[in-house]
Amino acid sequence: MTFDKELAGKAAENLKNLREKKPLIHNITNFVVMNYTANVLLAIGASPVMAHAPEEVEEMVSFAGALVLNIGTLSRDWIESMVKAGRRANTLGIPVILDPVGSGATTFRTDSVRRLIDEISISVIRGNASEVLSIARKESGTKGVDSTHRVEDACDAAVALAGELGLTLAITGEIDLITDGRRVLRVHNGHPMMGRLTGTGCAATAVTGAFLAVDNDPVGAAATALAYFGLAGEMGAEKACGPGSFMTASLDALYTIDALVLEKGARISSGLSYK
Amino acid sequence: MTFDKELAGKAAENLKNLREKKPLIHNITNFVVMNYTANVLLAIGASPVMAHAPEEVEEMVSFAGALVLNIGTLSRDWIESMVKAGRRANTLGIPVILDPVGSGATTFRTDSVRRLIDEISISVIRGNASEVLSIARKESGTKGVDSTHRVEDACDAAVALAGELGLTLAITGEIDLITDGRRVLRVHNGHPMMGRLTGTGCAATAVTGAFLAVDNDPVGAAATALAYFGLAGEMGAEKACGPGSFMTASLDALYTIDALVLEKGARISSGLSYK
Amino acid sequence: MTFDKELAGKAAENLKNLREKKPLIHNITNFVVMNYTANVLLAIGASPVMAHAPEEVEEMVSFAGALVLNIGTLSRDWIESMVKAGRRANTLGIPVILDPVGSGATTFRTDSVRRLIDEISISVIRGNASEVLSIARKESGTKGVDSTHRVEDACDAAVALAGELGLTLAITGEIDLITDGRRVLRVHNGHPMMGRLTGTGCAATAVTGAFLAVDNDPVGAAATALAYFGLAGEMGAEKACGPGSFMTASLDALYTIDALVLEKGARISSGLSYK
Repeated sequence: MTFDKELAGKAAENLKNLREKKPLIHNITNFVVMNYTANVLLAIGASPVMAHAPEEVEEMVSFAGALVLNIGTLSRDWIESMVKAGRRANTLGIPVILDPVGSGATTFRTDSVRRLIDEISISVIRGNASEVLSIARKESGTKGVDSTHRVEDACDAAVALAGELGLTLAITGEIDLITDGRRVLRVHNGHPMMGRLTGTGCAATAVTGAFLAVDNDPVGAAATALAYFGLAGEMGAEKACGPGSFMTASLDALYTIDALVLEKGARISSGLSYK
Repeated sequence: MTFDKELAGKAAENLKNLREKKPLIHNITNFVVMNYTANVLLAIGASPVMAHAPEEVEEMVSFAGALVLNIGTLSRDWIESMVKAGRRANTLGIPVILDPVGSGATTFRTDSVRRLIDEISISVIRGNASEVLSIARKESGTKGVDSTHRVEDACDAAVALAGELGLTLAITGEIDLITDGRRVLRVHNGHPMMGRLTGTGCAATAVTGAFLAVDNDPVGAAATALAYFGLAGEMGAEKACGPGSFMTASLDALYTIDALVLEKGARISSGLSYK
Repeated sequence: MTFDKELAGKAAENLKNLREKKPLIHNITNFVVMNYTANVLLAIGASPVMAHAPEEVEEMVSFAGALVLNIGTLSRDWIESMVKAGRRANTLGIPVILDPVGSGATTFRTDSVRRLIDEISISVIRGNASEVLSIARKESGTKGVDSTHRVEDACDAAVALAGELGLTLAITGEIDLITDGRRVLRVHNGHPMMGRLTGTGCAATAVTGAFLAVDNDPVGAAATALAYFGLAGEMGAEKACGPGSFMTASLDALYTIDALVLEKGARISSGLSYK
């Protein structure tokens, strides 16, 4: 397998720009991952803020480089705030990324995701295969927040869905798949230990949000962000004896990886042909 | 002191079954420990989900192997969702475990615990001595969320209370005591450093929930789960220089302990005679 | 630069008293930092509790040595609970410390801080320069939750504001500044890595709260608490390869630092003359 050198270069450039601009990333996210997400965003060089009150989300998002919406511990009020913040982000041209945690597992989650897609213009949706299939109204079989589908099995549906919705889908798994309905990129970075630490998917979404703040191309931003996050997972796993030390080491890796290391380590492939 | 070999074998068997079945554990728990609890559940091989919205708790719990209720940062709405989820779990025969964090410290906590006990059929309550005594309407003297009583001082009251309520009580402390009013088991695993890390009690409850998903005997499930969690604490403490490295090392230990290690390390004793 | 030996001695004494009394610290704080704050409070020897329900905050705070209010993920309901808990703390003579996270970034935050200051008698406000300037109704330019001002630039305004409000301001940054409008202390402990871990500011507030529980002098309590927290940051950074290992090592350091180590390591200077 040969990987795309241009995309590896783009990953390096995005990381460099991110660290120079230190964009504020506004997160309306779930209680489980708030701390870890904030730490990941700080480690990569972004400036995280978590704010969900209807009184302030529109004002807060106006300073942001990206808005990250995550329904992991959703409630009716929080969805309202997401819609409010999302619409304001749309007005201001600030990219919005959605993590449909557990979509397909309950009607409330699936319906909330559809409402967010209907009412907000979203740049990227990052989820696992089951979550993304649930958006396509396919039988998704999400089990709690875990996927019961493999990424490649969702490929055709994802390409069709991305085209239909006019946004970019980033499906993460052993190999990540990113598509806007025309282009298909795959990211080969990552490590199985990432599945044993809570919030790695959510953090991958937040890192993608941070890359969207410095890269106008959602497909490229998502692929390069996931390559970076996956590379940190690989480097973390090398030093880890289990999920505890993996969390520590992968946070350290996100911090220590620089543009050069990322350019060498990013493994992104492009084209519909690859299976 | 000699420990029960049969119970050590049961601990090993439960862990093996847990890792094969990977049960979904539905948690309605407190904000402080959500991340750590999810990480503990992933480390042991379960699949955690946190969901509290009244619109979805009944649907979410229907996929679960156990429901974990924890009142650590309770509010009126969340208690309603706990009741809703608990009743559905009861209907479906899914075991429910309750962590009465801080019961006895405020009237709101004590009353909420009593309401949950009244309205839901609960398999196991896991708490410290003061919290459990508060359920027995004894002067409990809970200080915030810490116990002011020793486990053995609560033994007689616990045996009586468990019999009266028709459920299993698991009181954790230097030596843990588990009783359903007839049997009394004690778990001698654990380490004082566990008291210096927030959420270890709550995580012990969640691990017990996961064991309830694979073991129909609540007393055995609780004792073997606490032996496993305590053993991971001992192994973590060996590598730790303080509570930070303890968190890391004990999460790693939960992940690396296998059935054989657990069978060798579990120190469970049975019988009312032991003091 | 010579540092104040008396204040270093006071730091040691406060730490010793804290570990003897193990005061309950009642936190109404933000979702991002709850776990980390609880772990920091446990590591230093205090007993943390998080409770926000209007039904219980007055009862819970009555057992506390200090009340910590933090608006990091504020909502209308939580501010009401803060007011309720704060008033009760005032009645009982329990010190209240406020962390005005992100004040100045949104009107809702700035207004909430002003309301808390109006309705509660607060002992100490701990924030960054931008947050504190926002209280002085100066153009603060808070970016999300990060400061855009240097501590020393806020010095004159802080001295005036502290005098006007009749409370102690603790502004943290490269060098921390503590003033009640008459005295000015500066703390030279700390490490830049603290800015790369979420919740270090919030945890510094909580540690200050714990010191207020054992020291009636708010200026001295804040300065000695910040010296302790900063020293743990320095010691953590020595062992760290990035923010992940920094979190681990600095929590360990908070736990292992004893009165003697703190007395030797505290770098506090006094007097208005120093710039």
